Amino acid sequence: MDTSVQARLAREGARKLQALSSKARSALLHAVAESLQKERSRILESNAEDVADGSAAVAAGTLSEALAARLRLTRRKLEALTEGIHAIADMDEPIGKVLRRTELARGLELRKITAPIGVLLVIFEARPDALPQVAALSLRSGNGLLLKGGVEATRSNRVLHRIITETIGAVVPEGTIGLVETRGEISELLALDGEIDLVIPRGSSGLVRYIQANTRIPVLGHAEGVCHVYVDEAADVDKALPVILDAKMDYPAACNAMETLLLHKATLVDGRAQRIVDALQAAGVELYGDSRAQRALSLPLADSLRREYSDLVATVAVVEDTIAAISHIHTHGSGHTEAILTEDQEAAELFLGSVDSACVFHNASTRFADGFRFGLGAEVGISTSPIHARGPVGVEGLLTTRWQLRGQGDKVADFSSGQRHFTHRDLPAD
Amino acid sequence: MDTSVQARLAREGARKLQALSSKARSALLHAVAESLQKERSRILESNAEDVADGSAAVAAGTLSEALAARLRLTRRKLEALTEGIHAIADMDEPIGKVLRRTELARGLELRKITAPIGVLLVIFEARPDALPQVAALSLRSGNGLLLKGGVEATRSNRVLHRIITETIGAVVPEGTIGLVETRGEISELLALDGEIDLVIPRGSSGLVRYIQANTRIPVLGHAEGVCHVYVDEAADVDKALPVILDAKMDYPAACNAMETLLLHKATLVDGRAQRIVDALQAAGVELYGDSRAQRALSLPLADSLRREYSDLVATVAVVEDTIAAISHIHTHGSGHTEAILTEDQEAAELFLGSVDSACVFHNASTRFADGFRFGLGAEVGISTSPIHARGPVGVEGLLTTRWQLRGQGDKVADFSSGQRHFTHRDLPAD
Repeated sequence: MDTSVQARLAREGARKLQALSSKARSALLHAVAESLQKERSRILESNAEDVADGSAAVAAGTLSEALAARLRLTRRKLEALTEGIHAIADMDEPIGKVLRRTELARGLELRKITAPIGVLLVIFEARPDALPQVAALSLRSGNGLLLKGGVEATRSNRVLHRIITETIGAVVPEGTIGLVETRGEISELLALDGEIDLVIPRGSSGLVRYIQANTRIPVLGHAEGVCHVYVDEAADVDKALPVILDAKMDYPAACNAMETLLLHKATLVDGRAQRIVDALQAAGVELYGDSRAQRALSLPLADSLRREYSDLVATVAVVEDTIAAISHIHTHGSGHTEAILTEDQEAAELFLGSVDSACVFHNASTRFADGFRFGLGAEVGISTSPIHARGPVGVEGLLTTRWQLRGQGDKVADFSSGQRHFTHRDLPAD
Repeated sequence: MDTSVQARLAREGARKLQALSSKARSALLHAVAESLQKERSRILESNAEDVADGSAAVAAGTLSEALAARLRLTRRKLEALTEGIHAIADMDEPIGKVLRRTELARGLELRKITAPIGVLLVIFEARPDALPQVAALSLRSGNGLLLKGGVEATRSNRVLHRIITETIGAVVPEGTIGLVETRGEISELLALDGEIDLVIPRGSSGLVRYIQANTRIPVLGHAEGVCHVYVDEAADVDKALPVILDAKMDYPAACNAMETLLLHKATLVDGRAQRIVDALQAAGVELYGDSRAQRALSLPLADSLRREYSDLVATVAVVEDTIAAISHIHTHGSGHTEAILTEDQEAAELFLGSVDSACVFHNASTRFADGFRFGLGAEVGISTSPIHARGPVGVEGLLTTRWQLRGQGDKVADFSSGQRHFTHRDLPAD
């Protein structure tokens, strides 16, 4: 099917979905979770075929082991998945929430409410468990959805998609959630601005970068996470050290892992810097320094001050003070997550107020930058763009707003003529 | 100066601006208003030269009269302008507002606060009074700004820009607000994604359409306002008629004026439709009908059901019921503003809940879709895109959010290991 036809069907389906009661949308999601649970053998069988092909591709050197590993579904993963969907079904209704209520004039009430965005395009690699999760979030938020999965998970994606659309088909059109299987390039989809409202890439930074560079559709995501931890002059090294280790070691491949350690010059003098470097190296972290760190801490010179290693490697740079640390982050950072470690409240507030990144932390590990840890429920992605949604994004990233005005035959001319007057009185919202 | 250098200077300046206290930013704005007031003769002189050239261009047929008319500044306009800037100076601090506060765990507090977007590009035609207004909003919201005005207002823009930057130059770098005067095409600016965060076109729909089609930078605005008024079966025609006339007549060139009138088929039978058509025609409105309206109301056939006349002209179409009206709007509308006129609460709520436009009204004129009437203070623009900001947009459209986390040496590993637990407790925000 033509992808622009699929986009149109998804929009029409989304309108049906929005017209359902909150209860009906919730019931639909429970039904989806149950179908997935019931059909788990069918899912695992199809997945086993993808996994077998994947192993062959690894042997042939055409697929990375990391990608192949993410391909595999298990009974346990499916259970977690269906539990997650039941939770999404039970969450507070996200649509129609009153964000703002204003009496414009007597008898004329304005509301700003949450509303679905329209049609989402989610492009994901390997990981077939992303499909039902994204489908559930999309159903919950009243959006139409186009899914484009990696070719290595074709069979898994197809069976998951079929089970979901068969289930929702009793209530809303199956086309509400479309699986794009054209052989054509992603570029064809990315040209559908006007028909697709938001693209969400779930995959490598290469994928995200490619999408950002090749579409006019807004993209929710981030290509890079060059996160900084700054150890201030007033840092308590006993408190700072475990946070630094957590930021680097807890999950080095994550986008919110520390990539660059900034050290206040004072920490060089009293041995704190050396203690931190020793601890990181003892934990198996390879360190590279800027020219000052190279000299003072005997580190090999870093080839760039902006590197996302995604591994047990980090850059160390020495800075004059908090202002210089902030400036370093603005020059070399990716706007994802940065932390200051200090006992100086003033320095902390300066950092929190000035660093222009999605997440800015004081005395906490960068690894906290995550939708679940932030208490947002399901995470749609982490955005480093200042437009629409920034940082870890939950369901609200799949929503927009709509203005509703309820009057009694009100005309603007009465206000221009001075016959009536605006009161603009705030009323309590939800 | 190279435009990408200007963008960088604007970003650096914006960071200085953000670092100021709320009071200092406010004082800066009062100073700008005062300078403009003091220098009004200088401004009016330069403007007179532009106006003279404009008149010559009108005579030569190279400039439209409408554009030339908007070019002229007067003492009165300048006064209104400086009053507006004083008001922006006095408004509540928009930066750093706490939108959400959550205790993630004991001693670990998360805040979602408002923050400036970064660097804005405002492209405007003729109207030089747009320059100080946009500059003031940008200063208030802590953003850097690039201004690109129409060539016909070159001298006015230059003097206004110089007065503003000379005034702010004592506190923040002059480059915080850059005036782009390259002879190069706008396309050069539109290629600066990564350096400019948001484009705001203020001008004709042709300009907006061109910008939307030629940049990857998010665009805040709307190209079209094909607004609908739907007269329901249960409409009270005495109440509906003045609203319809207001929606069409109050300011026909506005984007929120009614372009299409949808009539429930029942209104054909009992004469209400005829009465409405007669009243509009008596008021000088030219009407075109769809095939049903053509037959039933003897109207000439409309050549398209999606037309923004921006004049005393409208399309009339007959629909079966509310559902059909909604579907007509979804098919032919531009997602700007639509109204239902009815005494049937159920039909009204169906319409308000289903119509997928930025503004949806019940028993009120579409002309209310406006930042000032909505009580948003200064209006940045009206957006029909579901991404970032939708409908009339005030200063909040120039803001993004930032997540701040304040901890005491918190590590993620303690939570993964089960040693600590998330509480995710909502705390009162601002």
